[in-house]
Amino acid sequence: MGETVKLCEVGPRDGLQMAASIMPTDIKIEWIASLARAGLREIEVGSFVPPTLIPQMADTGEVVRASRAIDGLTVIALVPNLKGAQRAHENGADGVIVPVSVSEGHSRANTNKGSLEQVAEVRAIVEWVKGQELPMKVEAGCATAFGCSIEGQVPVGRVVMIAAALADAGVDGVVLADTVGYGNPAQVHATVRAVGAEIGAALDRLHLHDTMGLGLANALAGLEEGIRCFDSALAGLGGCPFAPGASGNIVTEDLVFMLESMGFSTGIDLDGLFRAREVLQRGLRDTALLGNVAKAGIPRTYSRAA
Amino acid sequence: MGETVKLCEVGPRDGLQMAASIMPTDIKIEWIASLARAGLREIEVGSFVPPTLIPQMADTGEVVRASRAIDGLTVIALVPNLKGAQRAHENGADGVIVPVSVSEGHSRANTNKGSLEQVAEVRAIVEWVKGQELPMKVEAGCATAFGCSIEGQVPVGRVVMIAAALADAGVDGVVLADTVGYGNPAQVHATVRAVGAEIGAALDRLHLHDTMGLGLANALAGLEEGIRCFDSALAGLGGCPFAPGASGNIVTEDLVFMLESMGFSTGIDLDGLFRAREVLQRGLRDTALLGNVAKAGIPRTYSRAA
Repeated sequence: MGETVKLCEVGPRDGLQMAASIMPTDIKIEWIASLARAGLREIEVGSFVPPTLIPQMADTGEVVRASRAIDGLTVIALVPNLKGAQRAHENGADGVIVPVSVSEGHSRANTNKGSLEQVAEVRAIVEWVKGQELPMKVEAGCATAFGCSIEGQVPVGRVVMIAAALADAGVDGVVLADTVGYGNPAQVHATVRAVGAEIGAALDRLHLHDTMGLGLANALAGLEEGIRCFDSALAGLGGCPFAPGASGNIVTEDLVFMLESMGFSTGIDLDGLFRAREVLQRGLRDTALLGNVAKAGIPRTYSRAA
Repeated sequence: MGETVKLCEVGPRDGLQMAASIMPTDIKIEWIASLARAGLREIEVGSFVPPTLIPQMADTGEVVRASRAIDGLTVIALVPNLKGAQRAHENGADGVIVPVSVSEGHSRANTNKGSLEQVAEVRAIVEWVKGQELPMKVEAGCATAFGCSIEGQVPVGRVVMIAAALADAGVDGVVLADTVGYGNPAQVHATVRAVGAEIGAALDRLHLHDTMGLGLANALAGLEEGIRCFDSALAGLGGCPFAPGASGNIVTEDLVFMLESMGFSTGIDLDGLFRAREVLQRGLRDTALLGNVAKAGIPRTYSRAA
């Protein structure tokens, strides 16, 4: 049996929040179920943010509750603050992911708070969850860890500082996110190594975007540094608000193809992902689905890692 | 100054041969000139094959002669046999690339000859060139080195055997080609290492396709194994006859972005490549141009390797 690599599907959250139209709730739930059937064991199903800001996420409570019924699925919601975390907990989410922008400018533009103020919010969430009877996983994402559309280069030292502060706040895991997709493999090697040296196994995973076409190469660099968990989105859903027409998250189908071809076990079935694409397209008829493996077809040389 | 990585642009040959329409010769020559202005120093400008088979290449003689006038450009033509090599030499090509399918089935389907018979043809070309007053570089490409649409998996041992036979035939360089784009990074690591152990510096470069979306990840794997020369095509032109709608060669623009971002010097200017895309689109109006960097725009964090 090949070494396991875990994928967390973020299409229903990071993918949909950029979509031009709103996916009907029943199709969204059907889509999440089809992703779980394909073998995904962790799905970020939505976010508890003001519906006035992101109308696509207005139904997250209902979606979380429906997703909990799926056997063996870890249901994650993105939350920007304690209030969001409380709503996620009320609705029975298994975990929350809280974004913290490493870039001070990005943090202020998005949350009206500096990076360290947002770390304090994460700490408040961790403390609040500790007082609850029902447990809930709290992870934090270091957004703009590989570059920022507002500030440009983000120094590795600052990524390490924020990651260390989050680990110190007691989160269950730290995610390094290439929010705008500016990262390159040399940078991924260097950043993962530096953060790993500081916080060890608390560095849980990478969240990569394919804006410049380097998504899978960056994933490979992370893999070579020992990362065994990645976010990705079916059909590469998503995008970048600062680059209209740009690609979104790394494509789940292509990432699974790469990992299984290399001998890693993901537990995910490509044909199952293709069926989930059909549901997705039904729910978002005006969105072009990306993904090379889906377009070219599975080659005869492919077999799942034994 | 960063370590140099050389790119060989294959769009005018490998890219166009799959195109639905025929690019007018004058635009083709203008396109090649624009690629050279962007900084490309080696371009595969066409192939000497029967025009009945590939009508897009019927003007290769004229294109080679015009390309020779471009200062500092190494002009390469693909040739399947001695007769083609003689025509390339007559027209003043600086070099030829001769494909040899590692997969016996692919070799017979494409050339009506077995792999080792084709190696003998390469040897005949090398010997013939030696007798000429004007020198011409002879390189050989190991086609289907990472998988075959006819035979499926291609054993690494067979790639090593064919590469060694080509080195023994006296070629100036051996290229490993993922003709159908089935390769993965682990396979690239293993194959480059095995071939390099056998033929050393005669292993010149990789020719990768992006069929499954793994093109740049595979290039990264090659880079990590010490490969410092890659084929690529502007706008990812090309395709795979066995996978309609599939992506073609790795995208020159995205590869340049990756390499320069990592600190490697390519000598190639992205804005110059974008201008070459405009010429290309004028010559092939019905073809969709690929490339993430061109779509997203160059990020503010980008700078050429110093």
